[in-house]
Amino acid sequence: MLYIQELNEGMKISGIYLVKSRTSATTKNGKNYDNVILMDKTGTVDGKIWDPDSPGIDDFNALDYVDIIGDVSRYNGSLQVSLKRVRVAKEGEYKPSDYLPTSDKNIDEMFGALLNFINKVKNPYLHQLLNQYFVDDPEFIRRFKSASAAKTIHHAFVGGLLQHTLYVTNMCYFFTKYYPILNSDLLLTAAICHDIGKTVEISSFPQNDYTDDGQLLGHIMIGAEMIHDTARTIPGFPAKLESDLKHCILAHHGEYEYGSPKKPALAEALALNLADNADARLETMTELFKSNAQKPMDEWFGYNRVFESNIRRTGDLDELK
Amino acid sequence: MLYIQELNEGMKISGIYLVKSRTSATTKNGKNYDNVILMDKTGTVDGKIWDPDSPGIDDFNALDYVDIIGDVSRYNGSLQVSLKRVRVAKEGEYKPSDYLPTSDKNIDEMFGALLNFINKVKNPYLHQLLNQYFVDDPEFIRRFKSASAAKTIHHAFVGGLLQHTLYVTNMCYFFTKYYPILNSDLLLTAAICHDIGKTVEISSFPQNDYTDDGQLLGHIMIGAEMIHDTARTIPGFPAKLESDLKHCILAHHGEYEYGSPKKPALAEALALNLADNADARLETMTELFKSNAQKPMDEWFGYNRVFESNIRRTGDLDELK
Amino acid sequence: MLYIQELNEGMKISGIYLVKSRTSATTKNGKNYDNVILMDKTGTVDGKIWDPDSPGIDDFNALDYVDIIGDVSRYNGSLQVSLKRVRVAKEGEYKPSDYLPTSDKNIDEMFGALLNFINKVKNPYLHQLLNQYFVDDPEFIRRFKSASAAKTIHHAFVGGLLQHTLYVTNMCYFFTKYYPILNSDLLLTAAICHDIGKTVEISSFPQNDYTDDGQLLGHIMIGAEMIHDTARTIPGFPAKLESDLKHCILAHHGEYEYGSPKKPALAEALALNLADNADARLETMTELFKSNAQKPMDEWFGYNRVFESNIRRTGDLDELK
Amino acid sequence: MLYIQELNEGMKISGIYLVKSRTSATTKNGKNYDNVILMDKTGTVDGKIWDPDSPGIDDFNALDYVDIIGDVSRYNGSLQVSLKRVRVAKEGEYKPSDYLPTSDKNIDEMFGALLNFINKVKNPYLHQLLNQYFVDDPEFIRRFKSASAAKTIHHAFVGGLLQHTLYVTNMCYFFTKYYPILNSDLLLTAAICHDIGKTVEISSFPQNDYTDDGQLLGHIMIGAEMIHDTARTIPGFPAKLESDLKHCILAHHGEYEYGSPKKPALAEALALNLADNADARLETMTELFKSNAQKPMDEWFGYNRVFESNIRRTGDLDELK
Amino acid sequence: MLYIQELNEGMKISGIYLVKSRTSATTKNGKNYDNVILMDKTGTVDGKIWDPDSPGIDDFNALDYVDIIGDVSRYNGSLQVSLKRVRVAKEGEYKPSDYLPTSDKNIDEMFGALLNFINKVKNPYLHQLLNQYFVDDPEFIRRFKSASAAKTIHHAFVGGLLQHTLYVTNMCYFFTKYYPILNSDLLLTAAICHDIGKTVEISSFPQNDYTDDGQLLGHIMIGAEMIHDTARTIPGFPAKLESDLKHCILAHHGEYEYGSPKKPALAEALALNLADNADARLETMTELFKSNAQKPMDEWFGYNRVFESNIRRTGDLDELK
Amino acid sequence: MLYIQELNEGMKISGIYLVKSRTSATTKNGKNYDNVILMDKTGTVDGKIWDPDSPGIDDFNALDYVDIIGDVSRYNGSLQVSLKRVRVAKEGEYKPSDYLPTSDKNIDEMFGALLNFINKVKNPYLHQLLNQYFVDDPEFIRRFKSASAAKTIHHAFVGGLLQHTLYVTNMCYFFTKYYPILNSDLLLTAAICHDIGKTVEISSFPQNDYTDDGQLLGHIMIGAEMIHDTARTIPGFPAKLESDLKHCILAHHGEYEYGSPKKPALAEALALNLADNADARLETMTELFKSNAQKPMDEWFGYNRVFESNIRRTGDLDELK
Repeated sequence: MLYIQELNEGMKISGIYLVKSRTSATTKNGKNYDNVILMDKTGTVDGKIWDPDSPGIDDFNALDYVDIIGDVSRYNGSLQVSLKRVRVAKEGEYKPSDYLPTSDKNIDEMFGALLNFINKVKNPYLHQLLNQYFVDDPEFIRRFKSASAAKTIHHAFVGGLLQHTLYVTNMCYFFTKYYPILNSDLLLTAAICHDIGKTVEISSFPQNDYTDDGQLLGHIMIGAEMIHDTARTIPGFPAKLESDLKHCILAHHGEYEYGSPKKPALAEALALNLADNADARLETMTELFKSNAQKPMDEWFGYNRVFESNIRRTGDLDELK
Repeated sequence: MLYIQELNEGMKISGIYLVKSRTSATTKNGKNYDNVILMDKTGTVDGKIWDPDSPGIDDFNALDYVDIIGDVSRYNGSLQVSLKRVRVAKEGEYKPSDYLPTSDKNIDEMFGALLNFINKVKNPYLHQLLNQYFVDDPEFIRRFKSASAAKTIHHAFVGGLLQHTLYVTNMCYFFTKYYPILNSDLLLTAAICHDIGKTVEISSFPQNDYTDDGQLLGHIMIGAEMIHDTARTIPGFPAKLESDLKHCILAHHGEYEYGSPKKPALAEALALNLADNADARLETMTELFKSNAQKPMDEWFGYNRVFESNIRRTGDLDELK
Repeated sequence: MLYIQELNEGMKISGIYLVKSRTSATTKNGKNYDNVILMDKTGTVDGKIWDPDSPGIDDFNALDYVDIIGDVSRYNGSLQVSLKRVRVAKEGEYKPSDYLPTSDKNIDEMFGALLNFINKVKNPYLHQLLNQYFVDDPEFIRRFKSASAAKTIHHAFVGGLLQHTLYVTNMCYFFTKYYPILNSDLLLTAAICHDIGKTVEISSFPQNDYTDDGQLLGHIMIGAEMIHDTARTIPGFPAKLESDLKHCILAHHGEYEYGSPKKPALAEALALNLADNADARLETMTELFKSNAQKPMDEWFGYNRVFESNIRRTGDLDELK
Repeated sequence: MLYIQELNEGMKISGIYLVKSRTSATTKNGKNYDNVILMDKTGTVDGKIWDPDSPGIDDFNALDYVDIIGDVSRYNGSLQVSLKRVRVAKEGEYKPSDYLPTSDKNIDEMFGALLNFINKVKNPYLHQLLNQYFVDDPEFIRRFKSASAAKTIHHAFVGGLLQHTLYVTNMCYFFTKYYPILNSDLLLTAAICHDIGKTVEISSFPQNDYTDDGQLLGHIMIGAEMIHDTARTIPGFPAKLESDLKHCILAHHGEYEYGSPKKPALAEALALNLADNADARLETMTELFKSNAQKPMDEWFGYNRVFESNIRRTGDLDELK
Repeated sequence: MLYIQELNEGMKISGIYLVKSRTSATTKNGKNYDNVILMDKTGTVDGKIWDPDSPGIDDFNALDYVDIIGDVSRYNGSLQVSLKRVRVAKEGEYKPSDYLPTSDKNIDEMFGALLNFINKVKNPYLHQLLNQYFVDDPEFIRRFKSASAAKTIHHAFVGGLLQHTLYVTNMCYFFTKYYPILNSDLLLTAAICHDIGKTVEISSFPQNDYTDDGQLLGHIMIGAEMIHDTARTIPGFPAKLESDLKHCILAHHGEYEYGSPKKPALAEALALNLADNADARLETMTELFKSNAQKPMDEWFGYNRVFESNIRRTGDLDELK
Repeated sequence: MLYIQELNEGMKISGIYLVKSRTSATTKNGKNYDNVILMDKTGTVDGKIWDPDSPGIDDFNALDYVDIIGDVSRYNGSLQVSLKRVRVAKEGEYKPSDYLPTSDKNIDEMFGALLNFINKVKNPYLHQLLNQYFVDDPEFIRRFKSASAAKTIHHAFVGGLLQHTLYVTNMCYFFTKYYPILNSDLLLTAAICHDIGKTVEISSFPQNDYTDDGQLLGHIMIGAEMIHDTARTIPGFPAKLESDLKHCILAHHGEYEYGSPKKPALAEALALNLADNADARLETMTELFKSNAQKPMDEWFGYNRVFESNIRRTGDLDELK
């Protein structure tokens, strides 16, 4: 079976793909047809079913895995697959990680590491707040473990939110060892919670797109509200502690222009902002290296808009003479 | 009695002033004395009680009105009153509006006008939300009517928040008559609620300073949370409606750099932003005219940092020849 | 007849279109042909007359309405009509409003409303200046009523300049009722005149493009000069009044970066800037809603560069449950 | 006689100074006194006449040269001269250049050099326009020769406008020799006229302050209007030529943020902007060197806000070893 | 022979072109072919040799001039030449200036003029430093004379670096005559050396692309280091003089955002920055005029991103009436 | 003995202070006197010796420790000490750390930790380059250990450069463990060397001010040149490795506006920039906490320009109820 990235004009293809969406439409001549978007981990491609009622076309929906037969052509500059046969595939016939971009780190191990950090938080209110999300709420845990940390840019894969959260928390923990002004309990809690709003801001894979609340409120506001709602369920949760924690969430982008309504006013908010930014940029660079992995070692990648620079790998110093 | 603005080096003064704060201190020689800040509507002045235990010094606290006798001197370039006698004045001996800056419009009439706008809101959920604050919550009403809309800049007086809210709401109502894309119920509700977070962000007069939550969260976040908490108490309040309303609050400053974590994404959020900005700027200009009222009609006020321009009154066109 | 927006590759079409331009050219083989741009209110399309001297091709010019027969093909990704027959149509055969974008408000009613505002201006010099343009100069009136307020962005239709001027003036009148620092005569005059330079900056429909003076001087400078030239014809027009009025014109964009050589230094200049901006943005949003009218109510329009945000309609609150 | 810069607390002084302004005032005790501002080329100092009706005090006005006797004291941190005797001095008793900052170049020679450039302009319309100002209008010539080019910053001295205009014109002439895209007639005319609006924007010495029109319109708009008014008096002056020339005036600051309502769209407008900026900056540096002339050769001047850098002279390279 | 700009789909062509690069590749079917980029002064075009081992295909390399026969087709929207015959051409068969963009000024004359400026530098250390590059180092001279001053934008032609350096030096020399604060020896040396780092930053024609050091260090840093290395070889070269000269190099872009790590702190650094900017902008305008030379005299060129404006030629004033 | 911070008008003082500078001057009456600046770790104060030739005044110079007797008065708003007796103190009479701000960490331990990181660098060229500075050059080591990392802002104390370098290197080492794209040898070397130019940019304590080269070139350029000069002394040092390392130095400020002439183009340059920024900001916050240590735990510090926010400590969460 070919990955979508490998398709080309004129091919006849068959294999299993994930259905991102399926909608019905009508040609100018009044004939019904279906628009289908197929995806795998390498990308998406438009599909057309010109004869939706033909016996070879199973009944299927978005998010089904389908085994298809089709012809690839080019229309208005883009590839298009005319689907002749569509059969819904059964679990076991396919490997989901072939269809969705996924962290190359083990999700359960990462989640375990995150729980270890939760256990370092001694303040009982903060500890309980973390537990309510990361221990007691299976639906939240499921969404958190499968969420991406972004629509594009960086960590845009299953497990991305978890990986980013873990790395940021780990870096914050590193900071607490060298900068004694930092309150470890507040900083670890803020780090672990800083992006929980993303479980609401961005819909699950394969959509991985902004939700209505994501557009209107954003993950910063959503996250602060989640903290607020949970804190209210914990008897005696100090109001000042809730405000300090919410401030860290609000300020973690560091600058107004990046959507933070407040600049860091607490040392922990500053530290969180630095760690969030450092992991985001180093992971963006890591992904850029991956997507240019085929290039010769000393070739420049071209101008990158995130880093506002042309980028190049360093290569193996020992090969220099 | 002299207003604080009129005090000058070498005067002996007596009269009633409001105590903004009182703290104890010790000189380098180990002698106790008191730092007092006196205020009236024209400003504040530092006071010193060098002999706090003398019989002529009543027991008094911040926010008391005190009848004092003292000597005005200059220290490090600023005026200072050495207080010889301090007596706590009784209600009736002074007029509070001489001591706090106050709207020159009638507060109860303005509040009545605001209630009229609430009655134009037909959507039952929004109407009930408004009622819970502006009709059913006497403590909120009291704070809302006495709050200023800012620490300095504009509407920094008792009734300022009410006046600003009324003017913004009135302008939004004007907009709904000419731009049919606007949903009147949502826009009026957003206008009425857009700055309710200021009742928490800024402490009451005479302090009128940022609270801890004001510093950490800001009135935009606080206001959105107030909407959220109240909406949750109203059975059936639609989630989408809550999000739309909160979005208008979040986006009403219009730009990230002004502390809005979201830019207006709904027509009502845009309209609210335009009305909020227009009233703020026209009121700032009005107050600038007042504070330069003594200048000749054709004299320039000097460079103003808000307007990034030198400013001048227009004067009476009919006097031109 | 099909609107240009409805044309598609492979169609044979006939009907009346407006000629935006016609130029002659020569193929590499030395054969003469004509480039024609056809337009109607839905857009423009390139046309080619490969045989300009054929008997079926009438003699015609830019701005003629022509009845054509042609074949639609695609060339370099764009549609192109090969014109086989071209006949100049007579008045009455077509409705001009099908060919040019036009305000959906009645132009004469709007102009009447604007004259009402002129009658509110009591200062004799300002009143006479307004009369010289809006009452006594039929050529100016004709251009003003048919002009657009912009090349694209907002109010880019016949009557757009009139509609924008009326709405801005109306909003300024609203301001004068609530902000007594504003001089009504100066503000209304400035509002009515603020964009008169656009009658020179942008050529008439169907070109609706920047003129040479528009490029070199811009409507702000042109408008101030028009005020200056007219004021000089009115005996006794006070020099200070001319300067105040010209200042309002110069400063009405509010910021240097938007082409104002002065920031508002008078309250009326500030108010005009606020009204101009508010109407421009609310009308831009209105037109954005229109151009997305076909989308489902809760669908986002995509990122909009003017508002720097994704945009969505609010929809009918009463349908929320 | 001492220069104002040399005055110090406790001195008794006598000598001739220029009166910048004189106003009457009343002490809190109801006694009349006069506020006088005295100036010479080194600065200004406040003067007080506590006994205005004493026989030793002549009748005098602003802009008179007065021979005074007085005592220097310090009040609120600034020096103040108590004037005991004031006598109006006669022409011949003083040298005006001791009282006003003046170009160290010969004004008549500079004006002659400027006329030479006017004679290089061959286009009859442009030549006539230049003549109407610089040859035929003695009042304009008088103001132009004595005007400064700025209130502060650079060329803030008598003859400063002339010197700046000559240097900019000379640099533009240099450009025409090396960049053949430049039209010499248009560029020289634009250079000679580019700041004529400053004769209206800034009042004459010793005030040298923004006029009302300067504040409201600025020298760019005023200059363009002067061109317009003069061009209209020259029969047959081509409209396009007037627009090109006005464009150069409008765009000569090069950036919106520096008050130009248009960016350079013609090569001549670009060249004028470059020459204007180069002379302004090199002269600012020259004046900075002068005001730090007493410092040792290798001493840094401190942070300068115009250049956004600490500045140092280069010194004599030949002394380096 | 046709210039590359003149090629079109369907042509059969023959003639001599310069080979910019040649690389081997393999089709999906495992067949070898060659990718060739052909260039002349009008542009580049992709070539394919589908049968690299055929007898008609000479052995050739990048930078050879080749006489080819081929067919022009369109692939993915771009032209492509299928090469049937390739023969390496001999010197004399072609004119190099047809293949590389070249200054229209005489390179040797310009270099002579530059040497004249070197002879004006009297300081022995600076003079010797200039000599080591511009008189004694034939390899440097060869590269300097053939280098462009930029990859695109302006002076992107053989001799461009020399022409830019000469014009900047000439303008600096002009400055020294009118602004006596400038040290002529330092300024001329800095002007002559200001872009010598470009001989390393950008590879030679026809590549004319950033080198690895160009990407990592940039011509400013490279140039300063070249000065440093050469100064160290000159006995007694004063350390302060080296620092002053390197500062001029570092600061010659004038602003941090243009890659200068220091703002001008010496008058000579300021003057060099002004001259560098003026020549760059006037030459950019000159090249823009050239590339629009075919347009009618009064036609606007369209929005230009360098000048952030639509641009138009001025035309012949004498034709105006 | 009193610290300088504790001095006050009217005191008679005696004790040992460090002489920051001593210069001779002459009063207007022609009398010689000396200007002396005394300092200790709490600040500086102006001193005057009105009778420099009196027997009680020892011969002394800048950087001497002197035992003085004097009277404190106030002049023009600042304190001033009139020195009656000055005796040069001997080593042992004073503790240098009372006179210069010093890191509260052990300098030799920190240097040892830095040497440990040098030993982790395996690449022989980089290792040798580091050794030449940090092992083999006692003068460099002495300056490096005593240098501050800044004139003000952060790490402005003896040992500050070492502490900052160690913390940045440690954070980079942390990064190498989690982001495998980073080349550990290059990153550690770059981190250790990133601010070595500061040993030249800023003069030693007690001056701690920018040197001439610091002003003209800055520590980024100076550091890159130091790398270059040392690399040239190491046989076989690869040119590419030198360029990569210099790039990391050049780009370590991350943004043009912070004085980096290049944005990070290598992953190691990015990581160094992130670590440098994180340590600088967390140390700035730490110093801000120290300088506000006396304030109550919940008091805000006031607006801070570095963080563009009001700042507050978090306090002890366990005290919250």
